[in-house]
Amino acid sequence: MITSLITGGAGFIGSHVAKHCISLGHRVVVLDDLSGGFIDHVPTDAIFINGSISDEVLLKELFEKYNFDYVYHLAAYAAEGLSHFIRKFNYNNNLIGSVNLINLSVLYEVKCFVFTSSIAVYGAGQVPMSEEMIPQPEDPYGIAKYAVELDLKAARHLFGLNYIIFRPHNVYGENQNIGDKYRNVIGIFMNQIMQNKPLTIFGDGEQTRAFSYIDDIAPIIAHSVNFPKAYNEIFNIGADKPYTINELVDVIAAEFGITPKVIHLPARKEVVHAHSDHSKARKIFGTNIHVPLDEGIHKMATWARKVGARQSQKFNNLEIEKNLPEGWSN
Amino acid sequence: MITSLITGGAGFIGSHVAKHCISLGHRVVVLDDLSGGFIDHVPTDAIFINGSISDEVLLKELFEKYNFDYVYHLAAYAAEGLSHFIRKFNYNNNLIGSVNLINLSVLYEVKCFVFTSSIAVYGAGQVPMSEEMIPQPEDPYGIAKYAVELDLKAARHLFGLNYIIFRPHNVYGENQNIGDKYRNVIGIFMNQIMQNKPLTIFGDGEQTRAFSYIDDIAPIIAHSVNFPKAYNEIFNIGADKPYTINELVDVIAAEFGITPKVIHLPARKEVVHAHSDHSKARKIFGTNIHVPLDEGIHKMATWARKVGARQSQKFNNLEIEKNLPEGWSN
Ligand SMILES: NC(=O)c1ccc[n+]([C@@H]2O[C@H](COP(=O)([O-])OP(=O)(O)OC[C@H]3O[C@@H](n4cnc5c(N)ncnc54)[C@H](O)[C@@H]3O)[C@@H](O)[C@H]2O)c1
Ligand SMILES: NC(=O)c1ccc[n+]([C@@H]2O[C@H](COP(=O)([O-])OP(=O)(O)OC[C@H]3O[C@@H](n4cnc5c(N)ncnc54)[C@H](O)[C@@H]3O)[C@@H](O)[C@H]2O)c1
Repeated sequence: MITSLITGGAGFIGSHVAKHCISLGHRVVVLDDLSGGFIDHVPTDAIFINGSISDEVLLKELFEKYNFDYVYHLAAYAAEGLSHFIRKFNYNNNLIGSVNLINLSVLYEVKCFVFTSSIAVYGAGQVPMSEEMIPQPEDPYGIAKYAVELDLKAARHLFGLNYIIFRPHNVYGENQNIGDKYRNVIGIFMNQIMQNKPLTIFGDGEQTRAFSYIDDIAPIIAHSVNFPKAYNEIFNIGADKPYTINELVDVIAAEFGITPKVIHLPARKEVVHAHSDHSKARKIFGTNIHVPLDEGIHKMATWARKVGARQSQKFNNLEIEKNLPEGWSN
Repeated sequence: MITSLITGGAGFIGSHVAKHCISLGHRVVVLDDLSGGFIDHVPTDAIFINGSISDEVLLKELFEKYNFDYVYHLAAYAAEGLSHFIRKFNYNNNLIGSVNLINLSVLYEVKCFVFTSSIAVYGAGQVPMSEEMIPQPEDPYGIAKYAVELDLKAARHLFGLNYIIFRPHNVYGENQNIGDKYRNVIGIFMNQIMQNKPLTIFGDGEQTRAFSYIDDIAPIIAHSVNFPKAYNEIFNIGADKPYTINELVDVIAAEFGITPKVIHLPARKEVVHAHSDHSKARKIFGTNIHVPLDEGIHKMATWARKVGARQSQKFNNLEIEKNLPEGWSN
């Protein structure tokens, strides 16, 4: 029987990947510290371990006990904009935690290490972003992701550890954490609407992203280990069509049947335009059709209305408060 | 009075930089945990603190007490080949330690953060390596150095912290740790000769490096903060002329007046040819003449004969032992 470790499996993308791995017949072990995930997102057929990828002793026990065939490593704190202000936490959680898993995957001869990197590795390069570009990340979140990518290549070169790296593009859908004011713009907007609060936009709202529905992402990640041609390759995954934040607001407002009140906050220092070339993923995985934005938003909103609004927590251990974007300091 | 923090100031390059900063009239605080350095290398006029860049509490005390104008950050464990086998230690010591210093330099408004990166960031790209190339490091040591470089750029962008980054090229000279079998090929050879041991070469010895004498490096690093045009720039520094390891052996053997016995070990996975373009440093810092290899070797050998051979220690906490190069496992 194939056994897979899914880190971050109580989180948004991880819980969907766990579900698809179970459909594939894997025995699934979910490791999540619930810092950003929810226990009721973990599929009931998965073995759930409440713990951190920073806990080397626990990790060693798990590798020893379960002898994983595959590691799907999704655990991370994925708040790109906030990462400037929590850079040490970011590198500890997202890089050192990953390195713990890479070391053990080498030692226990895992067959393939699947890693969710991010389009944040590209930096403000040309669009569309393609896997052939040499990344130049510009924030600690993207830097940590890129360091893990490079470390995986080094581990492959020296120790033969296979990897598959995905760079998903602004994913949204059911199970997303809509209660974290530092990330996930679609979740933030839905949460604001359900609380009758105005929608907050950084800058003029003309920055673009290609929002990608979870069902276009998670199955590919889960199935990827069965595609030998995907081994030791990097893939962009997600939707092709970029929308401005203003267009996004219109789609969400229409779904909720409201006329949106909008507050424009000062622009953040962030990449303005981002969309990816997905031809490589299409070539290997053969997927093609993407769920249109309004349809995906409808599905996510249906779920969000069911679970209701969430109170956003303040991130408690800011390392630097200088130049913190408005609304993030209290 | 200008106050400078020099991390790694009991080490090879750091002790020379400390000396030159003192000549410039700086009050110099050296922070070093003596993991690879020696207390008698610290200039007597410097304030010496025995401690680690991993110790956030200590660092905070030092920044609070001394209100540093400049931070020269040289502390690192610089064993590139070994870094595959100690990747977690490498990222903790060389990246997280650096991030501690970057956070505090932002908070305490340091005027310039001088960082010794490495040519290891380039990877096996074309030679000569030039600052315009986009780095693609291939081992954990180079990956950690590159992550620090990128993090400095991000900190500059968001918080206005100035930096100067140097990528020195295989430096050698007095005060170098000749007793570490995992690094510093020139030191290793001298140490082997003084113990009447054969010289160990990885592979055929036809790999090339441009060995750079310390006096061509350390003064530039120390003085750099006085060159406004150097701010927020990256510089290769070191010698221009590459030598093969076999040629190096001849120069050292001639200096010691011996006929070298040589043992060839299996080749390591490493970059075969490396030399750098130094025109950018020349343009800004105006230096031009380099100490020739035989002259530099003579100076270093004179010092090495005085201090004598050193017993090499084993690195105690190997994380992975698989594929460890011969001679490194015991
Ligand atoms: N959502 C996106 O648009 C997107 C885009 C690109 C990449 N990614 C990456 O995909 C992965 C999943 O992201 P997501 O959107 O599902 O976020 P998420 O926050 O919903 O999921 C991450 C999960 O990891 C867990 N986690 C965090 N730190 C942990 C630790 N130290 N130990 C154990 N568990 C820990 C959290 O509790 C959470 O359940 C992340 O690696 C993220 O960087 C996401
Ligand atoms: N020597 C070279 O050829 C070369 C080339 C490129 C870059 N560099 C870089 O230059 C710097 C100095 O290198 P070096 O050749 O002088 O090596 P070195 O080992 O002689 O000096 C490094 C010093 O840092 C100290 N140190 C290590 N970890 C520390 C920690 N956590 N806290 C406090 N002190 C710590 C060591 O005790 C040592 O004294 C390093 O950053 C290295 O990566 C060196």
